[in-house]
Amino acid sequence: MMIRLAIIGASGYTGAECVRLAAAHPNIDIKALTGERHRGQPMGAVYAHLAHLDLPDLIDVQEVNFDAIDVVICGLPHGLSQTVLADLPVRVRIIDLSADFRLRDPADYEAWYGKPHQAKALQKQAVYGLTELNRPAIATARLVANPGCYPTAALLCLQPLLAAGLIASDPIIIDAKSGVSGAGRSLAQDRLFCEVAESLRPYGVGHHRHMVEIDQELNAAKDAGGTVQVSFTPHLVPMNRGELVTCYVHGEAQALLAHLQDVYADEPFVLVGEQIPTTADVRGSNCARLCVRADRKKGRAIVIGVIDNLLKGASGMAIQNLNVMAGWDETLGLSRIAQFP
Amino acid sequence: MMIRLAIIGASGYTGAECVRLAAAHPNIDIKALTGERHRGQPMGAVYAHLAHLDLPDLIDVQEVNFDAIDVVICGLPHGLSQTVLADLPVRVRIIDLSADFRLRDPADYEAWYGKPHQAKALQKQAVYGLTELNRPAIATARLVANPGCYPTAALLCLQPLLAAGLIASDPIIIDAKSGVSGAGRSLAQDRLFCEVAESLRPYGVGHHRHMVEIDQELNAAKDAGGTVQVSFTPHLVPMNRGELVTCYVHGEAQALLAHLQDVYADEPFVLVGEQIPTTADVRGSNCARLCVRADRKKGRAIVIGVIDNLLKGASGMAIQNLNVMAGWDETLGLSRIAQFP
Amino acid sequence: MMIRLAIIGASGYTGAECVRLAAAHPNIDIKALTGERHRGQPMGAVYAHLAHLDLPDLIDVQEVNFDAIDVVICGLPHGLSQTVLADLPVRVRIIDLSADFRLRDPADYEAWYGKPHQAKALQKQAVYGLTELNRPAIATARLVANPGCYPTAALLCLQPLLAAGLIASDPIIIDAKSGVSGAGRSLAQDRLFCEVAESLRPYGVGHHRHMVEIDQELNAAKDAGGTVQVSFTPHLVPMNRGELVTCYVHGEAQALLAHLQDVYADEPFVLVGEQIPTTADVRGSNCARLCVRADRKKGRAIVIGVIDNLLKGASGMAIQNLNVMAGWDETLGLSRIAQFP
Amino acid sequence: MMIRLAIIGASGYTGAECVRLAAAHPNIDIKALTGERHRGQPMGAVYAHLAHLDLPDLIDVQEVNFDAIDVVICGLPHGLSQTVLADLPVRVRIIDLSADFRLRDPADYEAWYGKPHQAKALQKQAVYGLTELNRPAIATARLVANPGCYPTAALLCLQPLLAAGLIASDPIIIDAKSGVSGAGRSLAQDRLFCEVAESLRPYGVGHHRHMVEIDQELNAAKDAGGTVQVSFTPHLVPMNRGELVTCYVHGEAQALLAHLQDVYADEPFVLVGEQIPTTADVRGSNCARLCVRADRKKGRAIVIGVIDNLLKGASGMAIQNLNVMAGWDETLGLSRIAQFP
Repeated sequence: MMIRLAIIGASGYTGAECVRLAAAHPNIDIKALTGERHRGQPMGAVYAHLAHLDLPDLIDVQEVNFDAIDVVICGLPHGLSQTVLADLPVRVRIIDLSADFRLRDPADYEAWYGKPHQAKALQKQAVYGLTELNRPAIATARLVANPGCYPTAALLCLQPLLAAGLIASDPIIIDAKSGVSGAGRSLAQDRLFCEVAESLRPYGVGHHRHMVEIDQELNAAKDAGGTVQVSFTPHLVPMNRGELVTCYVHGEAQALLAHLQDVYADEPFVLVGEQIPTTADVRGSNCARLCVRADRKKGRAIVIGVIDNLLKGASGMAIQNLNVMAGWDETLGLSRIAQFP
Repeated sequence: MMIRLAIIGASGYTGAECVRLAAAHPNIDIKALTGERHRGQPMGAVYAHLAHLDLPDLIDVQEVNFDAIDVVICGLPHGLSQTVLADLPVRVRIIDLSADFRLRDPADYEAWYGKPHQAKALQKQAVYGLTELNRPAIATARLVANPGCYPTAALLCLQPLLAAGLIASDPIIIDAKSGVSGAGRSLAQDRLFCEVAESLRPYGVGHHRHMVEIDQELNAAKDAGGTVQVSFTPHLVPMNRGELVTCYVHGEAQALLAHLQDVYADEPFVLVGEQIPTTADVRGSNCARLCVRADRKKGRAIVIGVIDNLLKGASGMAIQNLNVMAGWDETLGLSRIAQFP
Repeated sequence: MMIRLAIIGASGYTGAECVRLAAAHPNIDIKALTGERHRGQPMGAVYAHLAHLDLPDLIDVQEVNFDAIDVVICGLPHGLSQTVLADLPVRVRIIDLSADFRLRDPADYEAWYGKPHQAKALQKQAVYGLTELNRPAIATARLVANPGCYPTAALLCLQPLLAAGLIASDPIIIDAKSGVSGAGRSLAQDRLFCEVAESLRPYGVGHHRHMVEIDQELNAAKDAGGTVQVSFTPHLVPMNRGELVTCYVHGEAQALLAHLQDVYADEPFVLVGEQIPTTADVRGSNCARLCVRADRKKGRAIVIGVIDNLLKGASGMAIQNLNVMAGWDETLGLSRIAQFP
Repeated sequence: MMIRLAIIGASGYTGAECVRLAAAHPNIDIKALTGERHRGQPMGAVYAHLAHLDLPDLIDVQEVNFDAIDVVICGLPHGLSQTVLADLPVRVRIIDLSADFRLRDPADYEAWYGKPHQAKALQKQAVYGLTELNRPAIATARLVANPGCYPTAALLCLQPLLAAGLIASDPIIIDAKSGVSGAGRSLAQDRLFCEVAESLRPYGVGHHRHMVEIDQELNAAKDAGGTVQVSFTPHLVPMNRGELVTCYVHGEAQALLAHLQDVYADEPFVLVGEQIPTTADVRGSNCARLCVRADRKKGRAIVIGVIDNLLKGASGMAIQNLNVMAGWDETLGLSRIAQFP
């Protein structure tokens, strides 16, 4: 059975990556693509690498006939996503790539995003979409809130360890590094080639919004009532794709490694090993790679995780979630092998 | 029916790329991988991105049981390839990625590679493996000589035009630019990151060996008896993958474009369009993209072609040729969509 | 004696590079910096790498007291430059980095820039500022039109050869490649990191405006009355700085090399050698490096030239011209040594 | 008065960078360059960007006439440096870029470098060459041990804070990121362009040798008797130059910032500011830039520092130390302005 898919906000990098994956997926039929600024244009005019595909032209979201749509993947920016998705027919299932439905407490949303949530009823239905850590709920969810890229990498490393009581809840220091595609295609001076190439830039130091998302899931894992607060510092790296988190925690490295290997033993997309991974080891694939090393100080450890921020960190996991929601083989249409070099 | 594949010389970039493609191909069973320097190691010790796959360990080519092999893809360096392949059982079909069997005239080989050919009998059986331009011969060949990356891009642009008499046989100036992966993984100072990044380097000016390969095929296409001699200047570009040829020829741009569109109308992997392509439009796919523009001087034109040098320019076309040889759908196991960004 | 300098349009990359050079120049006193969009801001708010310098804040050009200014360097975009510079007091000498005063024939300007020139009287005073090829006129000029980056590289290669009758005036094919900084700091999708990195892009094929500038100077060198028309195809390379031209011409390579070595023998910033240069060999310096190779076809040659597009191709040559205008040592404040790697 | 300089080990990146700086320095006369593997070659054959300079050819260190040398800068690898430098005449002053003389306790050297020190007498004379933190001793030293690049960045951030008791001595977590040039020009697979570009790689996790150097200086600053032990994790970033340390400490951010501003108020090459620096802000200059941010957890802070690893992190500080040793203006021959972009 084919699923009829609409991709709302298809003109951003994550939207276009969903188009690429969905176009090659054996069970997905792309029925509609929307992009307000590019309304009326063929997708190939916006992304030359998709020009030869037989795709619907970009339309406005109001023009979509949702009666002929089974699933929506939404790549709109946060804020906009919640207002658009609130109007969809209830039989349409949704995977939202924005931050709008990730935070369960509307007060958190308002505090970190600076305005009240506009779709609180819908937010209550949302299920946090980190596949490996929330699979049963995702399978039956109407609305899946796809995690942020940094939370994906950080939670895959830390959540099972905290839940098992193998690491202390403080300190948890996450030094994160990402390629540029995570910032999207919109124009901004600090995304220009000449500002990024041959440079390394810390940003959002002390206040990046992915912090609260990580906190929320770690607290839930531990029933910690909000007491877990991570330190989180992201850096922009001169590369297109790839994300790496270096997590400094208190715990015994060997026990941490063994537990992660155990937890993810049967997961097709989470690979735990002895070797320290690089982001190139997962580039172009939907895999995460994790490892643990002992710090020189007894009782401390360094947990390292890598993902491709556009795949496992966004569009790849969206398709993985869609596979789960449809009851299909979870790896359908997704690559487990990185493209190197 | 599965084909039992051996990849000889699997530890180079093109070899590893063949492993990646073959591992995900529905009809290929990887039976043996060889790599002299890495004999006895698992593939994952040589390429971390392949560490999670169930692959045979690297062995020496002498250790391969060729009775259980249907097809060999050979990624050995030129010179070595000819001596190794001459010893294979005749029932084994071969796709060779080296330059050893591309030149039909042994005198050409000796002149350009500096030593006599060691497998002249085998060389006579070789078929030039530019799929779109030589498909029937490839389908039944025992030995396919996979083209060089530059000749692939250049010939896709020029061969049909010259054969149809739409461009003059002189001048043909090919200004070529390539990413670094084409140079392989062996250690050389000019492939170090710091020597390549933030730099652009012309090389092999006036004497690059791909020149004679282009000449050979253009002469054959025109029955020109060796009179076609292209000017060819390659440049090394600071990127991993991608190759672009800018060809300056005498001819009418519109007629050239129309002819290329006509010739490649039904080809899944050669896309001819109005838009000037970038190498990113084909990165990670097996596609070539071509276009033609009029020069400001009447009667002159610029033909531009792009490929991913590791895919259409090497390992991707090897798998495409294998598909043709096996009588399968030519696109099996190959992506038509670039991974962008 | 100190020269009191105003830099108009200091917020672009070439403007900022002029600030960097002028701030370290022993005989220049930076008296005013203008930048309309950043009016009132310190330079360090626009360029962090200049934050520690004692520089005047950015003001509007109307606020500059030109009575206290000896020389203006103008980094405004073309079109705007001509209207602003027309109003300056006649005692102020000018070096203009835009294209506004490079074309001697107003009809050429109108044809290639799409509108009538607004400062024709001023245009008549303009002297083409390719230092090595026009030094005497520059020394006494009131207004120097600093050449475009591509014309700089191309003319250093070709003009002396054509003037000496050592190359034919047709064909002259210039295949050019540039880093991204030449495109400036203004926001455009195709300058985003993710659009440029791991990609190579031809652009302006058949109609780039630098073509007419090259034509003009070559015709003048040969007294050719407009009959010289080059073919010129630029490509965008994923690097910050650097520009390379590969010029395909008819002539004897050895004679061309000998003549270039002779012409530039005493030039501090033009180095002619046997070795094929890379752009890294000049990155961060004001030097050009040139070489010549024989094509495989008798009587044809390939002339290769490299510059740093922001230095010899823009701001460096502006300072070099200022040194000439002031009667100083031409190398003052300019580096002859590239920064590698 | 000119200083007669010999650069031993001039064929590595740091050696070549010393040549570049010394060649442009007004008071330095380069008298000898050594490079065993390139003996007899002109420097321009090893580094094309230096080909036009009037430099002595590379010779073997045994061929140097040290009677005509005042100062030696040594760019040899560790292990080799100690044996070569032990033989120099005592009147020759030395700046050593290797790790051989940085550790005061020979036991530390043996423990971390795996063999006994071969020049213990000389080691006793060595002065740790972090200019800003050890200026008086450097001024009169015979042998200056130039610090490692990571220790330079880390100690500029942390040493004054620890000495003043403003941060706790545990935890001190240094998450470090560096461009590739720090690894030198010798051939290694993981320095190839294709292995580094579009990738981020942690390395030396838990055991990088720069750790002990940082420990030594922090303990000395605090009279801590060896109790300070930092956690240090370096990462390789796909860029040529630049180094950034993100230091997680316990202390009050505002007090830390105020103290650093105070300590470095008069330093030409250490700039402390409110703005978070990027490595591009110092690329090509001898400056470090530092800033401090409060962590979200009370009483914790993040100290960030950037340098150009080849300049302030190696060759630039070597020249700065030479200026100090000679009693010259410390900024002579060194740039305080980054080259951006």
